[in-house]
Amino acid sequence: MKKIGIADTTFARYDMGGAAIDEIKKNASGIKVERYTVPGIKDLPVAAKKLINSGCEIVMALGMPGPQPIDKQCAHEASLGLIAVQLMTDTHVIEVFVHEDEAEDDRELKWLAERRTREHALNAIALLFHPEKLTEKAGTGQRQGFDDAKPL
Amino acid sequence: MKKIGIADTTFARYDMGGAAIDEIKKNASGIKVERYTVPGIKDLPVAAKKLINSGCEIVMALGMPGPQPIDKQCAHEASLGLIAVQLMTDTHVIEVFVHEDEAEDDRELKWLAERRTREHALNAIALLFHPEKLTEKAGTGQRQGFDDAKPL
Amino acid sequence: MKKIGIADTTFARYDMGGAAIDEIKKNASGIKVERYTVPGIKDLPVAAKKLINSGCEIVMALGMPGPQPIDKQCAHEASLGLIAVQLMTDTHVIEVFVHEDEAEDDRELKWLAERRTREHALNAIALLFHPEKLTEKAGTGQRQGFDDAKPL
Amino acid sequence: MKKIGIADTTFARYDMGGAAIDEIKKNASGIKVERYTVPGIKDLPVAAKKLINSGCEIVMALGMPGPQPIDKQCAHEASLGLIAVQLMTDTHVIEVFVHEDEAEDDRELKWLAERRTREHALNAIALLFHPEKLTEKAGTGQRQGFDDAKPL
Amino acid sequence: MKKIGIADTTFARYDMGGAAIDEIKKNASGIKVERYTVPGIKDLPVAAKKLINSGCEIVMALGMPGPQPIDKQCAHEASLGLIAVQLMTDTHVIEVFVHEDEAEDDRELKWLAERRTREHALNAIALLFHPEKLTEKAGTGQRQGFDDAKPL
Repeated sequence: MKKIGIADTTFARYDMGGAAIDEIKKNASGIKVERYTVPGIKDLPVAAKKLINSGCEIVMALGMPGPQPIDKQCAHEASLGLIAVQLMTDTHVIEVFVHEDEAEDDRELKWLAERRTREHALNAIALLFHPEKLTEKAGTGQRQGFDDAKPL
Repeated sequence: MKKIGIADTTFARYDMGGAAIDEIKKNASGIKVERYTVPGIKDLPVAAKKLINSGCEIVMALGMPGPQPIDKQCAHEASLGLIAVQLMTDTHVIEVFVHEDEAEDDRELKWLAERRTREHALNAIALLFHPEKLTEKAGTGQRQGFDDAKPL
Repeated sequence: MKKIGIADTTFARYDMGGAAIDEIKKNASGIKVERYTVPGIKDLPVAAKKLINSGCEIVMALGMPGPQPIDKQCAHEASLGLIAVQLMTDTHVIEVFVHEDEAEDDRELKWLAERRTREHALNAIALLFHPEKLTEKAGTGQRQGFDDAKPL
Repeated sequence: MKKIGIADTTFARYDMGGAAIDEIKKNASGIKVERYTVPGIKDLPVAAKKLINSGCEIVMALGMPGPQPIDKQCAHEASLGLIAVQLMTDTHVIEVFVHEDEAEDDRELKWLAERRTREHALNAIALLFHPEKLTEKAGTGQRQGFDDAKPL
Repeated sequence: MKKIGIADTTFARYDMGGAAIDEIKKNASGIKVERYTVPGIKDLPVAAKKLINSGCEIVMALGMPGPQPIDKQCAHEASLGLIAVQLMTDTHVIEVFVHEDEAEDDRELKWLAERRTREHALNAIALLFHPEKLTEKAGTGQRQGFDDAKPL
């Protein structure tokens, strides 16, 4: 049985981990989910690595960086760490970051966090079980959260 | 007996290391603490690694970056190093940085350094002994130092 | 038989992977191509590494970063990851990124994505089969996509 | 006999290496010093690593970045490299960088380069022989070069 | 017989590789030179690593970043990669980058590319055969290309 890891934070203002788990359960059977919650996004890389060490074949790393420059810097550092984890383990870690200033108000932010997480959960499942489905959509302007972009 | 490492600096203007140790002792029994003080935040990554090498199962890395652009750059470099340490050792290093320009005056800065350190000490204990308590708070907007954010 | 890896994204708004494969097939015989599509550019480094692990002797990493600052940051992170992959594997990964704001409109963007991809496909073939052809052009201001620069 | 490495540059406008060696000799006996001079600050990381490989138990990396944005970027890259060296070797490398624009004129710049280097030489000795002395000063606002900051 | 590696690009607008080889041959006997040309500066790190793998004891990495922000970012990424190569191999890689906006016109740019390359070729020879000559010039404000800076 394949295992998916969910790394999330207490810093986030929405339960992205819960949404991810729900979407995975709805769309794939015979999957085990392991969840690991850390304080903030900069704790996500080692959490993702530990999830992989414990047998997860793919990990979703979920976080909500704040709107200040320091928050952007933290997100940048976390992203670099998440890429490093992937290269150290040859395993995908799908980063799902929702920046507070992407949305106009809390209502939209909540909608965005929920939707981006769920759409990326489907990406994780595709990478794990049906990578050819991603190739079918190559170069088509797929976005997670807001509307897809227009293919050229 | 589990051992927690405390890496701090002579550069900081407040004894964050002392506050961390006090908070840990108050909230966990049967824990050994090892402290390693270095000149500045860019010396913290190797200090954290050495603490882990000597048996610490988690490390707190405490620092107070100054307000200038070069200080921000140093903090960024230190943060990347702390993430690298974690990935090399599969061990959490809780970064507790208090930027001088986060507070309006010295009094608030002192309050912030003390409070953020103590709140992160509790995070360290939770990661070490009760990780499920963090999952209970996943996505609830927890902050360390200033007030928590509003969950969406 | 040598194998070239093509890593591309569903995020891109043009089928750069298709263009790369077409150009390779037109210009080299007895080559096998393996394609790996991921959601976004930050997923490219691990995809490139997996392609190399599966026997590819060179990889093209194709992506179309958006025009926002956060997109630039993602591209920067992806680029650092692609360089890391190369150093971990001693294998070239040709990065082909087309930034949305490089072109004045969608028509030019499409032209640029197509042309840069095809020109870099020729670079990949040269690196793999005829590295001396690149030395013949050393210092001559070669560009991929827009016009070459003027040699001094 | 313990060995301290001194990595410096021909780019610097002051003989920081000489000052470091003089301060070390004045304050510690039975120490061997090995010096390695490179062209610029971006050559310091590998120089520091080679010094450690040859038996140095701590290294001082001395440099004087210029005032332009590109100089700042070079310093940033060098700093990241110096942190990497430390994590690869579990050995401290004390970075002593004096930025040209920190001082108002050449006279102050010379004073700063001399003083910061000497103060950090004492830090290196403390880390090597008396780490407890640094813990005594933890959180007290120590600076190297300009005046110490005020403890909160 | 010692071997020096020359990594250069087809992107550069001047034959820096040719200038480097000429300067090396003029100033050192009994040296073998191996040249490796890649498309752009971000391909230089792996090229440098391959040159080292094939026996080069030092490498010069030659490039001419363009004047746009994205070019600066590419140069930054390449520089980080070149530092990583050095730390992975304990071997110097002398980065010789000439930024287009350093010169006022094409004539000066050509002069700068030629002169900086040749001056760094001498640094490479010094590092390889006479490191003590660099120590003699430590802290004297040496520059490559434009005039040396004034020692303090």
